[in-house]
Amino acid sequence: MKWKRSARLVDMTYQLIQRPHSLIPLGEFAQTYQAAKSSISEDLAIIQETFRTEGMGELQTVAGATGGVRFIPRMKREQAEKWIQSMCQRLADPERLLPGGYLYLSDFLGDPTALSQLGWIWATVFADRQADVVVTVETKGIPLAHAVASNLGIPVVVVRKGHRVTEGSVVTINTISGSRKDIRTLSLSRRSLAEGARVIVIDDFMKAGGTFRGLIDLMKEFRAEVVGTGVMVESEVEGRLVSGIASLMKITTIDEQAGDVEVATGTILDDEGGWME
Amino acid sequence: MKWKRSARLVDMTYQLIQRPHSLIPLGEFAQTYQAAKSSISEDLAIIQETFRTEGMGELQTVAGATGGVRFIPRMKREQAEKWIQSMCQRLADPERLLPGGYLYLSDFLGDPTALSQLGWIWATVFADRQADVVVTVETKGIPLAHAVASNLGIPVVVVRKGHRVTEGSVVTINTISGSRKDIRTLSLSRRSLAEGARVIVIDDFMKAGGTFRGLIDLMKEFRAEVVGTGVMVESEVEGRLVSGIASLMKITTIDEQAGDVEVATGTILDDEGGWME
Repeated sequence: MKWKRSARLVDMTYQLIQRPHSLIPLGEFAQTYQAAKSSISEDLAIIQETFRTEGMGELQTVAGATGGVRFIPRMKREQAEKWIQSMCQRLADPERLLPGGYLYLSDFLGDPTALSQLGWIWATVFADRQADVVVTVETKGIPLAHAVASNLGIPVVVVRKGHRVTEGSVVTINTISGSRKDIRTLSLSRRSLAEGARVIVIDDFMKAGGTFRGLIDLMKEFRAEVVGTGVMVESEVEGRLVSGIASLMKITTIDEQAGDVEVATGTILDDEGGWME
Repeated sequence: MKWKRSARLVDMTYQLIQRPHSLIPLGEFAQTYQAAKSSISEDLAIIQETFRTEGMGELQTVAGATGGVRFIPRMKREQAEKWIQSMCQRLADPERLLPGGYLYLSDFLGDPTALSQLGWIWATVFADRQADVVVTVETKGIPLAHAVASNLGIPVVVVRKGHRVTEGSVVTINTISGSRKDIRTLSLSRRSLAEGARVIVIDDFMKAGGTFRGLIDLMKEFRAEVVGTGVMVESEVEGRLVSGIASLMKITTIDEQAGDVEVATGTILDDEGGWME
């Protein structure tokens, strides 16, 4: 059956968005739609133009016999800034203060709109790192890791806290929580991560960075290469154990007694790479 | 600026897919594209026709001043069956056998393609339940819950195991693990779930159903109404503590010594509702 251009445009847009960063051969489109490759190329030019103008990302075309087209979600820097600022406002609410200088974040981590924006922003900055997998630690990092990974079309691997893991043989590492000075165990199933993988490490919250340091050390045990690191919220503290983390937001003031919370945009906006023109 | 139909089709497809189950007013489209509502309606008819023919779901149009259009992702029953069968094959691999009669599932729970298919299938069956939120329990249920919730456009709430929860005041319940006969504590932050919410409960694995029973009991403490329940894999066992769970797969044989695993399609395919024509 021969397809009309209008139906092709709808279907191709759907297929490209559903499989970000995956190469789709032009021949596959040509066969599905019973159309000439030149028509497919014209369709792709229309989609490319709309994606660019509206700031959704771009199509990358790879020439040759093994070539094809892939959708790379990218955000404009101004749009990311606007959106992170509105998130900072939402976060700087004294009602969020929990005992011990923590902030209630669970609503962000459950909100599908917030997650899809977060994932899109990180996937922009990490778009060109050729990562194989996103690594996170249970529990609150998991939705964030999936939001990034689904935008990059790669899988997620979850590091567990403690030993009691029913996942076969595991590699375990002890790490010192910088802020609370207690020892914490991190475990990762041996079969869950291939040796030499290129990984992006994601977590929800960072103070001194002890857990993050432990995750990076654990990656060394797998001979994995850490090609990107991101945290949703960091809290300013002296004696940081890690550096160069792409944070979305930064808590600059937190005063439980006065009920005062101030939140600024994080370091991710300083990142040069990935943003759409 | 006036848009061409081809660009409108690409952009509308993107907007509809990014916001499943959310009502977008026709006036919003008409204003964005500087087009007459009659043109927008023609565009939507083209998108509807393509989505229906290709089995992606359907557009629901709501008439009147507060009306608009929303995208409901739905799968055809045959496609779900085919896909679940291939998942069963992947699962029935003796290499997955772990001590204690468990199966290694973490690769499924990290795989973006598997998750998006899983989420789409459950979102099909739960499409008409008017759910407000998806509830799950840490750790492995979390990616599944997000996969369903993102297809339904609703948030996720995560029940924690144990007491040590830094999320403010919590409601705690004790439940008996049916298979291991030990007591387990489930906690949920009071502010994370509104009273009277309509909830879908999702988990990764179920034997006797003790944890699932606990989740349902915990929902009663919040006066929440459970309008759907789903589990990725169930293992057949006598003395089930819950019933009516929409399972995707069912382990029918598991013999650690003989290295034998058999997996069949679960109960979700018996479900009457939601499938595309």
